[in-house]
Amino acid sequence: MERLPGFRDFYPEPLPHPDVWSADIRQHIFEKWRATACRYGFREYDGPPLEPLELFTTKSGEEIVGQLYNFTDKGERAVSLRPEMTPTLARMVAAHERNYKKPIKWFAIPQLFRYERQQKGRLREHFQFNADLIGESDPAADAELIALLIDTLRAFGLTSEDFVIRLSSRNAWYDFFKQGGGDMAHEYAFYQIIDKLEREAPEHSDQKLRAIGFSLEAVNQFIEKGEPTVELKTILDNLTARGLRDFVKIDYKVIRGLAYYTGVVFEAFDRKGEFRAIAGGGRYDNLVKLISGDKVNLPALGFGMGDVVLTELLRARGRLPKFDSPMDVFVLIEDEALRSISLKLIHDLRAAGYAVEYPLTPAKPDKQFKRAMDLKVAHTARMDNDAYVRIRNLKTREEVVTGLADTANHLS
Amino acid sequence: MERLPGFRDFYPEPLPHPDVWSADIRQHIFEKWRATACRYGFREYDGPPLEPLELFTTKSGEEIVGQLYNFTDKGERAVSLRPEMTPTLARMVAAHERNYKKPIKWFAIPQLFRYERQQKGRLREHFQFNADLIGESDPAADAELIALLIDTLRAFGLTSEDFVIRLSSRNAWYDFFKQGGGDMAHEYAFYQIIDKLEREAPEHSDQKLRAIGFSLEAVNQFIEKGEPTVELKTILDNLTARGLRDFVKIDYKVIRGLAYYTGVVFEAFDRKGEFRAIAGGGRYDNLVKLISGDKVNLPALGFGMGDVVLTELLRARGRLPKFDSPMDVFVLIEDEALRSISLKLIHDLRAAGYAVEYPLTPAKPDKQFKRAMDLKVAHTARMDNDAYVRIRNLKTREEVVTGLADTANHLS
Repeated sequence: MERLPGFRDFYPEPLPHPDVWSADIRQHIFEKWRATACRYGFREYDGPPLEPLELFTTKSGEEIVGQLYNFTDKGERAVSLRPEMTPTLARMVAAHERNYKKPIKWFAIPQLFRYERQQKGRLREHFQFNADLIGESDPAADAELIALLIDTLRAFGLTSEDFVIRLSSRNAWYDFFKQGGGDMAHEYAFYQIIDKLEREAPEHSDQKLRAIGFSLEAVNQFIEKGEPTVELKTILDNLTARGLRDFVKIDYKVIRGLAYYTGVVFEAFDRKGEFRAIAGGGRYDNLVKLISGDKVNLPALGFGMGDVVLTELLRARGRLPKFDSPMDVFVLIEDEALRSISLKLIHDLRAAGYAVEYPLTPAKPDKQFKRAMDLKVAHTARMDNDAYVRIRNLKTREEVVTGLADTANHLS
Repeated sequence: MERLPGFRDFYPEPLPHPDVWSADIRQHIFEKWRATACRYGFREYDGPPLEPLELFTTKSGEEIVGQLYNFTDKGERAVSLRPEMTPTLARMVAAHERNYKKPIKWFAIPQLFRYERQQKGRLREHFQFNADLIGESDPAADAELIALLIDTLRAFGLTSEDFVIRLSSRNAWYDFFKQGGGDMAHEYAFYQIIDKLEREAPEHSDQKLRAIGFSLEAVNQFIEKGEPTVELKTILDNLTARGLRDFVKIDYKVIRGLAYYTGVVFEAFDRKGEFRAIAGGGRYDNLVKLISGDKVNLPALGFGMGDVVLTELLRARGRLPKFDSPMDVFVLIEDEALRSISLKLIHDLRAAGYAVEYPLTPAKPDKQFKRAMDLKVAHTARMDNDAYVRIRNLKTREEVVTGLADTANHLS
């Protein structure tokens, strides 16, 4: 029996097959995400992977249904696996924001699901680090969030030579659109054209721009000039004070596809341009209001970073640690008469915090030692008799004999 | 908009409402589960939350479909959210077991889903710690797994006064059944009667037993005698050697409902009997063969421990830590002229591993200090000027002034 197409199995390292993913790398990534978010004062939350379908159509319109894992449950409810976290976050914040001091700084690591029928070989799920800052409209909030994004990538050993944040703003484009005499009925269509500039033929973009009173030439001039708005200048100064200026550049080609962004938008890219965006986000000041049915109105911004592109990038840049020695000690049991007391040793070492492996059943000494070597343990230990333990450091080849109760002291 | 019935929202502590769950407690539980499993040499794996429906019906028969979150996806596949992890594990092991040394010791922390229509107020999802040991039929494997179960609960501060493992064996009941002249056609029905002894009226159980040639009296005698089989004695001796004898008792009333168990079975209960089972497991030596379509044949055993009963028990026994001070340092910015250099201080402290909070926007000094107190930080820090930092230990009330580069040294 096979797993469903587009889903992943996560195995322990070393991986048995190129078609499966690493549970160790996944955990490594989750730990870095969580640790960096905590240093920045972000608190963890989570919601259900299954939500009412309406939560997602309210935000993104009915057209999103074509990309969802949606179905009718046994209680006749229209439900969907979550394709993104922001609607759940907005729902949770709207329900209980009064109990939290503003700004709310929260993060989550949800698994997200998209059913895209035509894309063969593409994944239908991924894990995404979501960090959001809610209840503060000052650009200081944008800078804090972008600093978190930068430091999250740095936590994996990536440098300003590996990645850059392309920083932009819907407000800058809004001003350009207004000053160019744009008709507000075409505002979102205009943003969509900008969003597709890098993927479409210039003639085609120009044609679409001209249809709403603009030209590719004027748009390109605005992009090339890249004059930061007051708001973006404030953010750049803030990041400069933190020593993070090298990680950011103004790039008005970024505008983000989603309809709900209202201000600053940004994407993280590898400098070599080999991969899709590593992360993306921005301001969505109207979304909490929309999801809460006008009950709660809070400015907000956030970003999402998926595990798939990040894993590919870290592998390509040699930034993944080896996961080949998760065990500390192998306890050899060469004399079965000493198995009982060896079990006590094993239990004591584990209680002291060491990861300990041993032969579950009788095995030849050379086979046991080979297993210890395969596991790349730092030490072997074996009972010499009922009271004394012989500890061997496999690196230095030093051996010590110690009382059973003292063993842990000789392992550090 | 509300979340779906039976699903949970996880919020940061302190909780805003009794109806929501704690993301901090959840993370605390996951960390203990993961750390204990690693000390025992178990490696993490995971599979998709959505699997082909057939994976679950192969194992449990068509009748399980009534309890599943199953649906037809847009590619006309019959799929289901996973109600348990073991079928996925068996599928993954069958696919790649040749690449792993035996015994395979693996764990996972999946979210599991059951749609039970009638049970109002009952949860439809939970997280479950799954640990499995595959490829070893010796009772030493059973002892190793049960020791892990015990130490996992001890990692939360629970003692032998709080919980006990009720240890039993399908083999013991099989022998009883055979020696009593049972007809093999009624074997599973017999186990089902034993499984329901504690929940059904004695007359009813007796009636059902008599229908297949047994009596409640004989069954009760067998249970009361509680004579361990050779296999169970080996396990008890092994646990005794580890110093864990107080955590286990033979109890033949336990037999586990699922059809696929083949040998030792066990459940963890709170000693006061206030809660449902904390964990349960046993041997399932034929399941990998069944799931792999006879391609792979490996003995196996495992257990599952859910987060819901465990959380209730830990709360009732006062074993949950407080989650009220996740921040280390609050940086006060009383002079806006020092905001830039304060941002550098904040960034340096976070880079040194501290969790740091600060006022994103200008705020009155007393309001800032109150926020620091609310966050229960250990220290406040503020720039005296562009070069010197004033650090205050809020517990001892000691103040030191130090150079910016030296700050982290004064926080430990």
